[in-house]
Amino acid sequence: MSGNRAVAYKGPGKVEVIDIDYPTFELKDGPGVNPANVGRKVPHGVIVRTIATNICGSDQHMVRGRTTAPSDLVLGHEITGEVVECGPGVEFIKVGDIVSVPFNIACGRCRNCKERKTGICLNVNPDRPGSAYGYVDMGGWVGGQAEYVLVPYADWNLLKFPDRDQALEKIMDLTMLSDIFPTGFHGAVSAGVGVGSTVYVAGAGPVGLAAASGAMLLGAAVVIVGDLNADRLAQARSFGCETIDLTEGDLADQIDQILGVPEVDCGVDAVGFEARGHGKDSGEAPATVLNSLMDVTAAGGALGIPGLYVTGDPGGVDEAAKTGSLSLSLGTGWAKSLSFMTGQCPVMKYNRGLMMAILHDRVSIAKNVNAKAITLDEAPRGYAEFDAGAATKYVLNPNGYLDGK
Amino acid sequence: MSGNRAVAYKGPGKVEVIDIDYPTFELKDGPGVNPANVGRKVPHGVIVRTIATNICGSDQHMVRGRTTAPSDLVLGHEITGEVVECGPGVEFIKVGDIVSVPFNIACGRCRNCKERKTGICLNVNPDRPGSAYGYVDMGGWVGGQAEYVLVPYADWNLLKFPDRDQALEKIMDLTMLSDIFPTGFHGAVSAGVGVGSTVYVAGAGPVGLAAASGAMLLGAAVVIVGDLNADRLAQARSFGCETIDLTEGDLADQIDQILGVPEVDCGVDAVGFEARGHGKDSGEAPATVLNSLMDVTAAGGALGIPGLYVTGDPGGVDEAAKTGSLSLSLGTGWAKSLSFMTGQCPVMKYNRGLMMAILHDRVSIAKNVNAKAITLDEAPRGYAEFDAGAATKYVLNPNGYLDGK
Amino acid sequence: MSGNRAVAYKGPGKVEVIDIDYPTFELKDGPGVNPANVGRKVPHGVIVRTIATNICGSDQHMVRGRTTAPSDLVLGHEITGEVVECGPGVEFIKVGDIVSVPFNIACGRCRNCKERKTGICLNVNPDRPGSAYGYVDMGGWVGGQAEYVLVPYADWNLLKFPDRDQALEKIMDLTMLSDIFPTGFHGAVSAGVGVGSTVYVAGAGPVGLAAASGAMLLGAAVVIVGDLNADRLAQARSFGCETIDLTEGDLADQIDQILGVPEVDCGVDAVGFEARGHGKDSGEAPATVLNSLMDVTAAGGALGIPGLYVTGDPGGVDEAAKTGSLSLSLGTGWAKSLSFMTGQCPVMKYNRGLMMAILHDRVSIAKNVNAKAITLDEAPRGYAEFDAGAATKYVLNPNGYLDGK
Amino acid sequence: MSGNRAVAYKGPGKVEVIDIDYPTFELKDGPGVNPANVGRKVPHGVIVRTIATNICGSDQHMVRGRTTAPSDLVLGHEITGEVVECGPGVEFIKVGDIVSVPFNIACGRCRNCKERKTGICLNVNPDRPGSAYGYVDMGGWVGGQAEYVLVPYADWNLLKFPDRDQALEKIMDLTMLSDIFPTGFHGAVSAGVGVGSTVYVAGAGPVGLAAASGAMLLGAAVVIVGDLNADRLAQARSFGCETIDLTEGDLADQIDQILGVPEVDCGVDAVGFEARGHGKDSGEAPATVLNSLMDVTAAGGALGIPGLYVTGDPGGVDEAAKTGSLSLSLGTGWAKSLSFMTGQCPVMKYNRGLMMAILHDRVSIAKNVNAKAITLDEAPRGYAEFDAGAATKYVLNPNGYLDGK
Repeated sequence: MSGNRAVAYKGPGKVEVIDIDYPTFELKDGPGVNPANVGRKVPHGVIVRTIATNICGSDQHMVRGRTTAPSDLVLGHEITGEVVECGPGVEFIKVGDIVSVPFNIACGRCRNCKERKTGICLNVNPDRPGSAYGYVDMGGWVGGQAEYVLVPYADWNLLKFPDRDQALEKIMDLTMLSDIFPTGFHGAVSAGVGVGSTVYVAGAGPVGLAAASGAMLLGAAVVIVGDLNADRLAQARSFGCETIDLTEGDLADQIDQILGVPEVDCGVDAVGFEARGHGKDSGEAPATVLNSLMDVTAAGGALGIPGLYVTGDPGGVDEAAKTGSLSLSLGTGWAKSLSFMTGQCPVMKYNRGLMMAILHDRVSIAKNVNAKAITLDEAPRGYAEFDAGAATKYVLNPNGYLDGK
Repeated sequence: MSGNRAVAYKGPGKVEVIDIDYPTFELKDGPGVNPANVGRKVPHGVIVRTIATNICGSDQHMVRGRTTAPSDLVLGHEITGEVVECGPGVEFIKVGDIVSVPFNIACGRCRNCKERKTGICLNVNPDRPGSAYGYVDMGGWVGGQAEYVLVPYADWNLLKFPDRDQALEKIMDLTMLSDIFPTGFHGAVSAGVGVGSTVYVAGAGPVGLAAASGAMLLGAAVVIVGDLNADRLAQARSFGCETIDLTEGDLADQIDQILGVPEVDCGVDAVGFEARGHGKDSGEAPATVLNSLMDVTAAGGALGIPGLYVTGDPGGVDEAAKTGSLSLSLGTGWAKSLSFMTGQCPVMKYNRGLMMAILHDRVSIAKNVNAKAITLDEAPRGYAEFDAGAATKYVLNPNGYLDGK
Repeated sequence: MSGNRAVAYKGPGKVEVIDIDYPTFELKDGPGVNPANVGRKVPHGVIVRTIATNICGSDQHMVRGRTTAPSDLVLGHEITGEVVECGPGVEFIKVGDIVSVPFNIACGRCRNCKERKTGICLNVNPDRPGSAYGYVDMGGWVGGQAEYVLVPYADWNLLKFPDRDQALEKIMDLTMLSDIFPTGFHGAVSAGVGVGSTVYVAGAGPVGLAAASGAMLLGAAVVIVGDLNADRLAQARSFGCETIDLTEGDLADQIDQILGVPEVDCGVDAVGFEARGHGKDSGEAPATVLNSLMDVTAAGGALGIPGLYVTGDPGGVDEAAKTGSLSLSLGTGWAKSLSFMTGQCPVMKYNRGLMMAILHDRVSIAKNVNAKAITLDEAPRGYAEFDAGAATKYVLNPNGYLDGK
Repeated sequence: MSGNRAVAYKGPGKVEVIDIDYPTFELKDGPGVNPANVGRKVPHGVIVRTIATNICGSDQHMVRGRTTAPSDLVLGHEITGEVVECGPGVEFIKVGDIVSVPFNIACGRCRNCKERKTGICLNVNPDRPGSAYGYVDMGGWVGGQAEYVLVPYADWNLLKFPDRDQALEKIMDLTMLSDIFPTGFHGAVSAGVGVGSTVYVAGAGPVGLAAASGAMLLGAAVVIVGDLNADRLAQARSFGCETIDLTEGDLADQIDQILGVPEVDCGVDAVGFEARGHGKDSGEAPATVLNSLMDVTAAGGALGIPGLYVTGDPGGVDEAAKTGSLSLSLGTGWAKSLSFMTGQCPVMKYNRGLMMAILHDRVSIAKNVNAKAITLDEAPRGYAEFDAGAATKYVLNPNGYLDGK
């Protein structure tokens, strides 16, 4: 049996590669593991040797110290890999399968899973509905920025790629299926994007770029992406988006210049609670994105909100922000009959269709988000560069499968 | 040609019956008429002799002086009547038809109307999408708490009842089709109510009772209504709802006592921006209802929000409320993957089906909301009693059709 | 370990109670078991002691000799029971749970199950998508008209009732959740029934009565049931349906007399391939029901088709019928823009909501279908009476739980 | 006032350009006009000077003598043009507007129009729901393969292009919005096509190519088009479709070679009742397409059926075909839980979104269907070539707007 190395949170601003145990079919105690989950048997699980595991913007919330994550918590919920061992209760997944692991862990047995709401599974997190690998307050399932990781309820959770060689060839695209591609796509779907829609995506980070890619796949006529970061906007333009530099003038005016009207059909918030005000040198302003989306989304539209909002934020700008309260212009939204769709993306609802779109060359998601493979040991640098605003999606390569990609 | 008498707003806390012009097929200048609508030709309109016209909770916002409504604005947007004259462009509606008038005026020609979004018609209100009779900032269409009223785009807007005698027999029920029954029903539909759902309706005023009635018609297993007003709660119990007295303890606890779990599948806000805090002697607290609905709606649920939220409220409790901003625990909502559905009900989407349910005795909406007919001259008293919390839906009877009902 | 007694098919027109093996966590060879399923391990299964197990119209197809069912095939796919033993892979279902078993067996791991299409699970029947207990060509899972039965993938398939005493009190209603109530409800849902709809249900057997009950629960304004059997029509009238005796004149005329128009919004075929022509003394005419539904369903409507149509029928009236071909007036359907929704009901999509409606007294499905408990030994008589047209739903009581119901 | 020239049906196999009256705001008597529509006033209409008007496959049914169309019936229901005169009841459409005319005429006032079902409007055809320009048994509205045409209910029916110059530049694409692009798209939508779907489109005529284009716009992973005509298949390959030559072997086998499985997620019938059997030299076999779609569509899928099926076909191959009856393997469909979606496309539901997709270069529908402009006088040749199987969509140019396109 091999050892195991993993990226861990070591305190605000700091991640390190550490040695951890090779997984077994039991959830053992460790940093961030919910006591009620300690000792949980996982005969329905498989052990996955990681092929690709990505750094996510939501990891950054922990790394910046904006959460109660403990030191040594193993990070990583965007996992693609090869199955190397199957628990005794696994029937359909086999050793050697190349699989995508949805970031939200689901049991496949509860009411919510049966209703396709796998983002709020009732059986995997003792604290509340919903869970994820390597994330604070999500049950304590060990993160996947590691060489090996345990995936529970494997027959339910895993998406098996139909062909190994084809999968490895397109692996930089397929690795986006574990989180950001479905997450961005869900933002577009829940914003009501359809054939001919005009769309504004707030935020040109990886989720925003994935939302823009998803909107295009859904047939949107015009996809506009706004951000404060010029490099990320250039990335959006690289695959056909219109862009808006929020440091330069009014959002509605800029939309008007593009579309001839100051409104879009559909709005996507791909930023979340760490939003900054528009304009140069603005500070953190958590309600800015949602309020501006209400302004520029046409009456009758919907706001897809994949961007994360939290129930508590120790680093919030004021008392309200610290308790997850936002000052929202709901009157504006109500007058326009808007809908607001929040929450984790239920990845399993979308990943198979998006995989098909990737395998048949209908979308180049890796190129669109500027995916870049780095080694496990380079993870700390990847975190730092991403936090500094690099227009790059960092993909860790713990076992060499991505060498040369 | 007859004269015309109508209920008008005369300043904070005051309504009076006044003489106004008999309608013609033109929108003339008058209190609250948008200048851009003055002189608008209405050949597609009909003149309706009012059979029943109800006092609505949203009228109270104006009467309480919480809006910029001018004196002498004619009130009334819940109108049922008999067609007495047809404009030259009317083809299918005929003199003598008994009709329900949706409170939201729609042109039947714009993009939104074509998409069934008649609550945000683009062509009837020069200021913004959406319009209504007798309402401030809604274009200036004269209100229908009057003997006669002009209804534009009659072939599109009007719901004709199939049989005159049957209609007059069930008129106290059918009069609820112009607003509160569809509005409450829309709240239930947009909250995702279906067969077997558990539902919490915040507010036992007429819209709340209509939402509860709608939830039952949709097959809800349990409908719970909460309010601070014991009479209104008794009204809710009269047709099979469970009730919660919000002056007595925690909402989630009380739900738990009824259902065995502290959460419902679906939440409806039938209160809106003039919400008061829970508990005895609480003051106005505009975000209370929405925040408490986020607490008690199960993960994956939706909040239907027929209760009105405004963009500006001169009488708001603080600066935020005055500009229509609310301090919402969006983090809670996001963690639970909740959806929030706001805005005016598009009445035309629902009124025909609800009419069928009434005509075939599947629902007794008049009884459920405790409808009571009063004369036009009694309107000021009706407004006062309703404002004081009477568990009654007041229906004005300007032309004697309701005598004996 | 107990023995086990069960109802078996013994040749055309003949059923008998026989002794069979007590189930184990393996699918053993036997009459009708697909060779590819022989020896299949079922660690995810539970053994259920049967509380109630109903005779279904689709069982009659086998018993009449209209299929290739072998002698000694154990019948029964409508099962409600108490869990007496759990396989080693079962995590959430416990011994002592009172459960409803959906008639369609599903794995909870394949693409279709993940998409809620449990009626066409890909992993339980080696021959084709979809499976059921005790049914020819459905994989060979042993039927449940028995004292004990094996239920595979128990955590996924089973609906656990929240309270044992409450469940036993309402057991005659809850037993309809395994098949006919969801099946009839699915017919209504797929026919587009909503609040205010007018509905015609062809067939007043148990599924037709369940469809009518479902339509009412969905808020239909008028539910009309047609049949050739006066007793079954009386049963339909007992809970508020309008009825049409198809031996007496034209269907459209009779609908016109009820509704004032000769068409309904929604049509349900609760008859299937063994349909008889309308009018007295008509012979079998497999396309009659569908063609007449096309006539009487209004343009834009949908036909829900829970009634079974088969790919081969050795007893068919002609060559076309023997190969499952029907002569359909598709031109009529096309001119009216009709939709046709076929197939097994995916029970898991509906059973939880319908359970809630039963437990909270929103529907009396046992009364509506005239449920009657009989002993296991009385099964042959139940089959015969049902086949002869009794307006009764026979519920077998193999273990005495229903004594006194 | 100008004269008017138009393409008319002159008997089986024959069309001619004839002189007809310039339209007025009244529906006058003439060949094929329903007596109940004679003299109908059309103050809500506009007169359109035709820019582009296409020959449609459904016109061919009349021209081949397969209907009861009378001689001198003016053909043409695919109309794009410039408004040159507005009736007195027209409010929003203006002279000079460049507009697309949906082929299905709708009143914008009936129940079906209010529900977006404009393909089955209740008020424009005295015989049955649904109407179209220039088509037998559709009310008698004069066809638009003419220099000028009357469009009733213009504010409702017309889609105005936002910019005249832009519209004229893309006019060869935009002309497909009147029928085949929405019709093909509706086929794809009703077949359930979404992101990642595999799709089989039966028929590579213009509607089939439009369905394929629509499927791609909806994000389909693989679109396969089948036909007997090699040129049309080449056209399908030109924009990325896979193709199947039905003269060469089994359909399921050929799908298997492309996809690795012998089934697709979604099936579209873009052929209709004049289907021919598969294989070389096959004769007419009206049920072939639907039966083969049932074979190759995976369980749980849907069949979108934009191809026309008629209630009576004097030229049908046998008695059943003459009365619009088809011998369908419904048992196969039922076992696979398939859905069947029939009827005219409600153009207004889709044309705006598809227009946006065209204007923003998301689809090249003119290129995909190989649109070719010809003069009005060349129409007879266009009909003949199209009937002979040309892989071309013929667009008539009655007023010179298309010169040089």
